[in-house]
Amino acid sequence: MYLYTNIIGSFVFDESFNIVEEVICKNLDDYKNKDKCEAELKKKYKSLKSPDNEELKAILICLKNKKYHFKFYELNQELTKSDVRDSVDESALIIQAVKSAEEVDKSINMLVKRLREWYDHHNPEYSRSESDNKTFVSNILKENKEELLKRLNIEKIDSLGADLKKPDIDSIKGLATQISQLYYLIDKLTDYISNIMESYCPNIKAVCGISVGSRLIEHAGSLKRLCLLPASTIQILGAEKALFRHMKTGARPPRHGLIVNHSLISKASNQMHGKIARTLADKISIAAKIDYFKGSFIGDKLRKELEEKFSKND
Amino acid sequence: MYLYTNIIGSFVFDESFNIVEEVICKNLDDYKNKDKCEAELKKKYKSLKSPDNEELKAILICLKNKKYHFKFYELNQELTKSDVRDSVDESALIIQAVKSAEEVDKSINMLVKRLREWYDHHNPEYSRSESDNKTFVSNILKENKEELLKRLNIEKIDSLGADLKKPDIDSIKGLATQISQLYYLIDKLTDYISNIMESYCPNIKAVCGISVGSRLIEHAGSLKRLCLLPASTIQILGAEKALFRHMKTGARPPRHGLIVNHSLISKASNQMHGKIARTLADKISIAAKIDYFKGSFIGDKLRKELEEKFSKND
Repeated sequence: MYLYTNIIGSFVFDESFNIVEEVICKNLDDYKNKDKCEAELKKKYKSLKSPDNEELKAILICLKNKKYHFKFYELNQELTKSDVRDSVDESALIIQAVKSAEEVDKSINMLVKRLREWYDHHNPEYSRSESDNKTFVSNILKENKEELLKRLNIEKIDSLGADLKKPDIDSIKGLATQISQLYYLIDKLTDYISNIMESYCPNIKAVCGISVGSRLIEHAGSLKRLCLLPASTIQILGAEKALFRHMKTGARPPRHGLIVNHSLISKASNQMHGKIARTLADKISIAAKIDYFKGSFIGDKLRKELEEKFSKND
Repeated sequence: MYLYTNIIGSFVFDESFNIVEEVICKNLDDYKNKDKCEAELKKKYKSLKSPDNEELKAILICLKNKKYHFKFYELNQELTKSDVRDSVDESALIIQAVKSAEEVDKSINMLVKRLREWYDHHNPEYSRSESDNKTFVSNILKENKEELLKRLNIEKIDSLGADLKKPDIDSIKGLATQISQLYYLIDKLTDYISNIMESYCPNIKAVCGISVGSRLIEHAGSLKRLCLLPASTIQILGAEKALFRHMKTGARPPRHGLIVNHSLISKASNQMHGKIARTLADKISIAAKIDYFKGSFIGDKLRKELEEKFSKND
């Protein structure tokens, strides 16, 4: 006798493929707990076995009966919905947050450029003396033209900027306020990514840091895909253009992709970049596998090994 | 005898080009009030005349004296600074505000796209049902998933979106909050532009409205340049690409540029577009000239003429 289960329910067939007993799934939960139901049937009918290919064909013909059609359609649809819902995991959320942060950053760059041009009409000296955008934005919000010029030892009367009226300055400050809030939004998004990574991929977080780690997941598509990649691919993830240029024209292959922003590499001398990138990618690959298969936390150990190895060589 | 004034001061020369009297400018204000000083000298010396070209040469040789150099350099620098400061007029401020609004708009579009993709993980049904970005952003901030689905007569259990945790939703809302504040910033910038235009170019504002009027000034470079343009150029301002395509390939010439967004044109039937654009550009040209030369306000009359002319033809 045969036992066959699909989304409609569990069926027991005799040797000539007639249904002996059927346990219909009432809802998706019944299907998800099919093991329990199958175990009960196995207790009842001692000699139950799974059908092989030929036998399965005969069984499926029995199930072509119209009375199963609606149930089959309905439960399958629900199963699909549930799978779509479950597909939103931490990877998807990290990816959205990383991309948001990148796009907010793009917006900030565009708007700061505009702010500087606008503010230059009022106080060109300060704008030119402060190259850091974040400091520039927060300072013009905090201090007025006279105070900012005093830092540069310039008298207000010597400034090339026009004396704007209050509504004009308020308008400039309105833009600056928005930009500073966008900076704040990036900080909040980074915190959020950090929190997810803490529980979802603590090893990657410990080895790569938040920025590089989240970008690797974003670039790979998910933690699962990242953990399936060989270390050599992780090493040049994000340097696809250079890789294909290498393959097409024989130019030098890229030594690193996204991981170039890792503090170990950016601190090191240029000759060491390739060597560090190779070892780092190795450790990331290990970390990704542990994180995906929910292994224990060894991120700090991996990180320490890396740091010890390359502090000696310096 | 000759009277000659430059930034150093006013000089009286006799017929053999010796300095008879000099009144040195102490600062820029003295130079700006040179008329007064010249008038006094003219009273003292009855037969003063302006030097012609040949005589000017002889006079300038006298002024080559080194003792004038530093004064000449210093006052000229101050004059340049003052001119740079004065070059920031309302046109410059309008242009900066218009460009800011455009770039904030670009940022909004980019971020709303990201917000929709992110929010889709949670509630794809609502995102697809609401195509207006501004409404979308404000509604997801105001109402939760269940309330939004109720509007669409969808049960929460039927949604394809995942149930996200509070920190996840808060993060999405953080992005949405920023976007809604960027919308608010655009409104404030528009108010600001409107206020400047009210006093600076009321006629253009009355004829074109804020959006088209400010963009015309932005595109022309300043109110002065706009007022110097012929009406036919104003008509196709902003359609340069189509104009050059016409001149190069003989394609149809553009009928309108930026002014296509004017309510008179966008409301009219397609055949009327060219005709309205021509007349509208005419009136804008008149309005720009009045505004630049500070004439009286006839904007409402111009607008009325336009509206009457084209409501008859409908």
